[in-house]
Amino acid sequence: MSRRPIIRIRVVLHEGAALGPGKADLLAAIAEYGSIAAAGRSMGMSYQRAWSLVDELNRYFRSPVVEATRGGAGRGGAHLTSVGREVLATYRSIEQKATKYCGAEVERLRRLAPPEGPDISAPK
Amino acid sequence: MSRRPIIRIRVVLHEGAALGPGKADLLAAIAEYGSIAAAGRSMGMSYQRAWSLVDELNRYFRSPVVEATRGGAGRGGAHLTSVGREVLATYRSIEQKATKYCGAEVERLRRLAPPEGPDISAPK
Repeated sequence: MSRRPIIRIRVVLHEGAALGPGKADLLAAIAEYGSIAAAGRSMGMSYQRAWSLVDELNRYFRSPVVEATRGGAGRGGAHLTSVGREVLATYRSIEQKATKYCGAEVERLRRLAPPEGPDISAPK
Repeated sequence: MSRRPIIRIRVVLHEGAALGPGKADLLAAIAEYGSIAAAGRSMGMSYQRAWSLVDELNRYFRSPVVEATRGGAGRGGAHLTSVGREVLATYRSIEQKATKYCGAEVERLRRLAPPEGPDISAPK
């Protein structure tokens, strides 16, 4: 939790389709693990959930972002296509720019919301 | 839907507390309507849901962001406190800066995800 970015971005692609931190992290994990199932597991996600998100993502874009290769006995790998790599890199660039340019405002909000606020986890 | 910003921002204030477009729009509607119930209604939200979100917001920050004045017979008004106005203005400023500085990247993503994509609302 603590490593998550402080600003989370959701880009609305078109009606009913958005790319946010969950799908972006899943793409990154697929690139890392070379497998949809392993990527999902690394995020505490069920196999079905991970496949369903990949299926959604593949429908969002002009061409698929993830390609799976199924081998025998249900085993197989997956990798990002060039479109998938571009989607992920572009999303990360948005996150980085938002963090950079909105840093002062985010700090102002966080100063107004101290973790030791009156009703949250106050020890006494 | 179509008037919603293309970039939606969620600012993580601290563990378990985040400010996103829903809560920001609710604050804006309370400022506009002068009533939590009317603000919720304007967003298609139940009375209970609107009150619950306001209660959450009031706990997040150093001091309440919304003050309600209950009159007789369950009627009453509500307004943003000075902290509430600062929170909303700061959030809107983050939205505007993210939209401004990330515009090129957002356009790139949207060009990769045409609404006439192969599996979404294609007429044939």
